[in-house]
Amino acid sequence: MTAALRGLLHAPPPVVAVGATVLADALAEQAVPHVRVDWRPPPAGTEDALARLAADPRRASANAEAVRRMLAAGATLVDVRPAADLVDLAPGQFCHAGPPLDWSAASGPMRGALIGAMLLEGLADSPDDAQAQLARGRLHNGRPIELFPCHEKGGVGPMAGVVSPSMWAWELRDETHGTAAWCTLNEGLGKVLRYGAYAPEVIDRLRWMAAVLGPALAGGVRAAGPLDVKALVGQMVQMGDEGHNRNRAGTLLLLRDLLPSIVESLPAADAARVARFVGGNDHFFLNLVMAAGKLQSLAVGSIPGSTVVTVMARNGTEFGIQTAGTGGQWFTGPAGVADGLYLGAYGPRDANPDIGDSAITETIGLGGFSMATAPAIVRFVGGTVRDAWATTNRMYEITLAENPAYALPVLDFRGAPTAIDTTLVVRTGILPQINTGIAGRVAGTGQVGAGLVTPPLRCFVAALESLAARAPDG
Amino acid sequence: MTAALRGLLHAPPPVVAVGATVLADALAEQAVPHVRVDWRPPPAGTEDALARLAADPRRASANAEAVRRMLAAGATLVDVRPAADLVDLAPGQFCHAGPPLDWSAASGPMRGALIGAMLLEGLADSPDDAQAQLARGRLHNGRPIELFPCHEKGGVGPMAGVVSPSMWAWELRDETHGTAAWCTLNEGLGKVLRYGAYAPEVIDRLRWMAAVLGPALAGGVRAAGPLDVKALVGQMVQMGDEGHNRNRAGTLLLLRDLLPSIVESLPAADAARVARFVGGNDHFFLNLVMAAGKLQSLAVGSIPGSTVVTVMARNGTEFGIQTAGTGGQWFTGPAGVADGLYLGAYGPRDANPDIGDSAITETIGLGGFSMATAPAIVRFVGGTVRDAWATTNRMYEITLAENPAYALPVLDFRGAPTAIDTTLVVRTGILPQINTGIAGRVAGTGQVGAGLVTPPLRCFVAALESLAARAPDG
Repeated sequence: MTAALRGLLHAPPPVVAVGATVLADALAEQAVPHVRVDWRPPPAGTEDALARLAADPRRASANAEAVRRMLAAGATLVDVRPAADLVDLAPGQFCHAGPPLDWSAASGPMRGALIGAMLLEGLADSPDDAQAQLARGRLHNGRPIELFPCHEKGGVGPMAGVVSPSMWAWELRDETHGTAAWCTLNEGLGKVLRYGAYAPEVIDRLRWMAAVLGPALAGGVRAAGPLDVKALVGQMVQMGDEGHNRNRAGTLLLLRDLLPSIVESLPAADAARVARFVGGNDHFFLNLVMAAGKLQSLAVGSIPGSTVVTVMARNGTEFGIQTAGTGGQWFTGPAGVADGLYLGAYGPRDANPDIGDSAITETIGLGGFSMATAPAIVRFVGGTVRDAWATTNRMYEITLAENPAYALPVLDFRGAPTAIDTTLVVRTGILPQINTGIAGRVAGTGQVGAGLVTPPLRCFVAALESLAARAPDG
Repeated sequence: MTAALRGLLHAPPPVVAVGATVLADALAEQAVPHVRVDWRPPPAGTEDALARLAADPRRASANAEAVRRMLAAGATLVDVRPAADLVDLAPGQFCHAGPPLDWSAASGPMRGALIGAMLLEGLADSPDDAQAQLARGRLHNGRPIELFPCHEKGGVGPMAGVVSPSMWAWELRDETHGTAAWCTLNEGLGKVLRYGAYAPEVIDRLRWMAAVLGPALAGGVRAAGPLDVKALVGQMVQMGDEGHNRNRAGTLLLLRDLLPSIVESLPAADAARVARFVGGNDHFFLNLVMAAGKLQSLAVGSIPGSTVVTVMARNGTEFGIQTAGTGGQWFTGPAGVADGLYLGAYGPRDANPDIGDSAITETIGLGGFSMATAPAIVRFVGGTVRDAWATTNRMYEITLAENPAYALPVLDFRGAPTAIDTTLVVRTGILPQINTGIAGRVAGTGQVGAGLVTPPLRCFVAALESLAARAPDG
């Protein structure tokens, strides 16, 4: 008899209660020591798809390749340019966050941001005029108004994610895979276009960003030379930023690296205003984290047989995901409303459903997935420090890798949980944790709070079924 | 019979093993559940002093007042000025770190720094010439060379802490208590004067700091207006800095706040060089943390009956402390050698004993006391993340207060352990934990490593005895 078996017979039997809590509750009442394991069966109807994918001989190597590419992706800031150039947008063409959307399905903040973009581009005289043209789908000059998901134009946009030709954007490159991605410049918090506000102050700020800030940053980047954004993200996660709702350290590191060159190339008054604008906006670096995330997603691209999630994005109405095994196909479900803390007198009734491409941060292991590294954020989105650790630990259960480039000090430098596996999400019922800003649901409001939200499970079930349908017959 | 007593009789007896481990080890062998409590008797001969202080009726209120003042102290950056002005130093007069010292007792790095300061001030033609004058105690013109502890001139200096008239220094004020304190400007790492290096590059850098950096910072501070350093320290401890060996976030926050005004007031080339110098030195903010700490120490000052430690400082030969109840009197013992990690080919044999006024950070709850908030530092000084948490938790055992202004996120925003009690140190044998840079023991070497060190217990025993001697007869 082995020592282990002897122990089993000579000691009281250990009890492990898996899933339903009836047994565990009864044991607790009888003071019997036991271990609870959280488990629930996969949703009814997914068993066949899960079995089919488990048997797919391509899956292990396809997922390994997806992980390899996601972790190998670089992110270098190479330029700052107007979207007219960088995204190849013409007047009347706009990008937006999340999966495809038309005006009739657009939520308040998405409509507000589109109205603001029409005003910024000089395509409308008033918000009412802008709204009328958007609803009709045509500009006064008869040209069609076209809406594209940022993700389908090679970039990402926070919150409404509306991009129009005169907005400037960061241009990042992944030299490992030879790809590029963009993201707009961050406007700050409160009444800003990306939260659906379009008051004159919002448009004036965007005009200054196009006239002064964008060219100043472009000059700084060109003079300073390419900037390793991946390395900066690696540093920020050691400084209490999780890269979605907290970007303070990242913003300061960017300022440190760009400002000397900006100072040398700009009139002093402009350089000082740029320094104050960037330094006064703790979220300025978010847009660079997002572009770096988009590069990790692009690096994976399409890999037949891989169940890795490559995109999670919301348009304010629907939540959409993409996977490596299904390429550019969207799997959508209704966007939820974040649970969190509200600014001033705002409350849950003022909240729009979840919105923005910023969930690209969670898609690649930052944001809610790396909450453990940012205890200061828990006060901003509600919750405790222990909740933050538990969240990150839970995300390791649905991911395939740990990213050594984004090492979380508080977890003994364990890498951020990276590469969400569709089958693990469905099998465990553990949904990706996103921490996010909350937009007011009425167009023109702006930000009303920040909190925690998860995608609808149905996105993952739909992706799972599509992946299973593509699996070879066993 | 009360419920508690009934429980005691009806359940197996709980066993608590205090101090010596013989009983606990035996219980462990017999698999008897037990709790170990780390305790050792106070050092022989201190019982009478401890008893006398325990009976001192002034002690509780005196310590409460010391805590109140230490926590209420503000720290506002108001100016940057040459030491000739700010410290009122004449040629041939120098400040140094730690308790009083003369040339004959000075260690290698202290001698190196004094040689460098002589060269900087134009008082010597060569290192040999400087050394000869320092050994003689007179300048060529016959004036005596005088050495003063920084602490006795109202300031603090990192490592050797040598200050000469032409060096510029930060000037901070505590408006609550109407006091001021200073600290020099940080030169960066490696071959720098404060680590005892005096090569031409060291002197050239100090000349540039006096000619450009100091006046630039002064212009920036005067234009930006007084800067709340206490608030910046509160932010940095939420960003992975413990304020002694890690000051990266603090440095970036300072750059953010000062740079716009510097840009507006300086030629672009100078402003850019200042931005690069400050941004390229993660320790730049250390000297402001130190000056803020000195203000907390000054706020306490002398309080008869208080056993709170107000100063811990090392001159490279001796470690010295002061307490509120004993005022300006030093209690010294031989400085230890830090245990840590070494740069390049350096090793423990190259290390000088502990040196610098930077232990003011630990005196007021930062540095080694707040290691828990800076997991990234543990790789720099050796150790693990758990070690860092354990260190901070241990420091709560020898301190009287938690500083809400310096809240440590990872400990659920518990305040930094503040106000070391001499009697608690002696009674528990737990020594204050200092994390520090290590200077090369040979003059001229510079930094050789960084690590952890504790003061000699005898400083605290001597202070205890002096405090007891001043206690009223019971």
